[in-house]
Amino acid sequence: MKERIHNFNAGPAALPLSVLEEIQTGFLNFKGSGMSIAEVSHRSKWFDEVIEDATARVRRILKLDDHFHVLFLQGGASLQFCMIPMNLLPEGRSADYVNTGTWANKAIKEAGIQGKEVKVVASSEDKNFSYIPKEISFSPDAAYAHITSNNTIKGTQWASFPNTGGIPLICDMSSDIMSRPFDPSPFGLIYAGAQKNLGPAGATLVIIREDMLERVPKGLPTMLKYTTFMEKNSMYNTPPCFAVYTIQLVLKWLEDTIGGLETMEKANREKADLLYQAIDESEYYRGTAEKESRSVMNVTFRLPSEDLEKQFVQQAQEHGLVGLKGHRSVGGCRASIYNATTLEAVKALIGFMEEFARKNG
Amino acid sequence: MKERIHNFNAGPAALPLSVLEEIQTGFLNFKGSGMSIAEVSHRSKWFDEVIEDATARVRRILKLDDHFHVLFLQGGASLQFCMIPMNLLPEGRSADYVNTGTWANKAIKEAGIQGKEVKVVASSEDKNFSYIPKEISFSPDAAYAHITSNNTIKGTQWASFPNTGGIPLICDMSSDIMSRPFDPSPFGLIYAGAQKNLGPAGATLVIIREDMLERVPKGLPTMLKYTTFMEKNSMYNTPPCFAVYTIQLVLKWLEDTIGGLETMEKANREKADLLYQAIDESEYYRGTAEKESRSVMNVTFRLPSEDLEKQFVQQAQEHGLVGLKGHRSVGGCRASIYNATTLEAVKALIGFMEEFARKNG
Repeated sequence: MKERIHNFNAGPAALPLSVLEEIQTGFLNFKGSGMSIAEVSHRSKWFDEVIEDATARVRRILKLDDHFHVLFLQGGASLQFCMIPMNLLPEGRSADYVNTGTWANKAIKEAGIQGKEVKVVASSEDKNFSYIPKEISFSPDAAYAHITSNNTIKGTQWASFPNTGGIPLICDMSSDIMSRPFDPSPFGLIYAGAQKNLGPAGATLVIIREDMLERVPKGLPTMLKYTTFMEKNSMYNTPPCFAVYTIQLVLKWLEDTIGGLETMEKANREKADLLYQAIDESEYYRGTAEKESRSVMNVTFRLPSEDLEKQFVQQAQEHGLVGLKGHRSVGGCRASIYNATTLEAVKALIGFMEEFARKNG
Repeated sequence: MKERIHNFNAGPAALPLSVLEEIQTGFLNFKGSGMSIAEVSHRSKWFDEVIEDATARVRRILKLDDHFHVLFLQGGASLQFCMIPMNLLPEGRSADYVNTGTWANKAIKEAGIQGKEVKVVASSEDKNFSYIPKEISFSPDAAYAHITSNNTIKGTQWASFPNTGGIPLICDMSSDIMSRPFDPSPFGLIYAGAQKNLGPAGATLVIIREDMLERVPKGLPTMLKYTTFMEKNSMYNTPPCFAVYTIQLVLKWLEDTIGGLETMEKANREKADLLYQAIDESEYYRGTAEKESRSVMNVTFRLPSEDLEKQFVQQAQEHGLVGLKGHRSVGGCRASIYNATTLEAVKALIGFMEEFARKNG
């Protein structure tokens, strides 16, 4: 059996090896239950402990006070694009959105489909989304301001969050949640598909502030209301148990093994700095995002030609470095280096990049 | 480490041991990819093979012709309760629903929440949902007729599907799909949460007939339209990869190890017959569903007193027989004996029931 490779996929992505090993070890008999985690009832003490621990860890790691509810949904960020305006943008009001690329644009589009009034207060479309807009004028009467904290496709990231002057921030943190500490207080809602920094595909973390719940209209379908998930502790219906369990283990790893967000950020920054340095010092590779907007999670770069990029991705794969192809919508190369990607993996990638440049330069 | 127990949970429920073992064996390195199935990209050849094989197996096992699309969604049957009227019940038309208990009632309620016109053409509420209504007059102009094929809580099941006179049948088959063969042609849409007969919680199988897709209104949110999932082969956004993978293995087990639906039905009927016989022959246990409406999947029964029921469930658990408590809304006892529950498990339960009756009779 081939060894494990270095996984640079954009999501689903690498998970901590110790988490995978723990899942594997107990897979036929979860904590002495005599059942797999895939078989235990969601109304059992076995699963209660899982979801309660996962929730408590999210609260502790992100330092959330009692005004925030931690929920687990399904449907990914894409369902949130629709649920957010449906729940939180009342008739007769407007919401501000910042357009930083594909995912932000999908969020904007879904609000529009519902006939909601949306104002795009800033966009980096003029430079092919290669930067994060600065000095944004948010509308003083906006119902909320929506941003995408990290843009996997273009490799940009908000270095710090914008001051909205009190308007609730709503943020798609799918690709950088739990990668660095931040002050949660300006956020009305934070959402994240699990499959980058949290766990496998199939669960969506939603953190919603108490005052946002008051906006939820009464007449919405039950499964599309945040209040349903809040009132039933994410168990109105059967939750995605295996995904929530994996999230619990990833959070335990982050908290107990890594030591929390400060240490995690330091490790992430070290990996990204090394990789960007290798790109900047070479005359062969070229970063595509503006330097001060560069993502610590997704490092996008080009080679001298598309043909060389194709060879690079192919040969990297043969060297056990997988997932380096850029998003199909933009081409080029991309190394996604989320929390679980090791420094060793990044060093192996840099070594390969140097070798490839030497041979093909 | 304690042995594996006999799992009679209503869902999430028992999975075939060989499926769990295959997942466990390859969990750190899926088919030589060097990654876990929880880490591979959904846009990779690794996952393509999984979802294509799962889809092909659903088509083969259920003998679906090209008029049917096989889709994998998230959100469980509960999200389908809302999506069905949203997509398939046009303004100015009405749909027929049959009320056979909690789940059917939730489906009816969600149509009503959207202001859709619903006609409950039959109900077994008069006898506490202990039977399946017969001789139903469906409305000739109904947009569709909705039924729940098996009722986990009350332990009833449609022995055969009603003749709707050409009105498309829409059926919640969450708890008995793949348990017996049936003619798919009258069905406009079939849906099933995976966590009973298909796999773990976190995926919903939707089978939709071509002509139903023409009804989908243009203005719906992208993630709430069946056409989105049809057009993108269930990969508009990241699907619940692990759940789909497990479903693939369960279907492989059903097709290649069991031998398909005819053999599966025979095995299921043998288990149910044995258990109902044990109940009927005892003076101690009492089945709660009317005989001709009895479910082959969920066997509901009572003991002489609630106190004895409590002791029964407790002592059964100590004997390695887990999940026998009735649904919290009705009390009593329930043994869920889905596809993956073995004959051995049912025999062990019957042995325990006889012993318990002798000691406490």
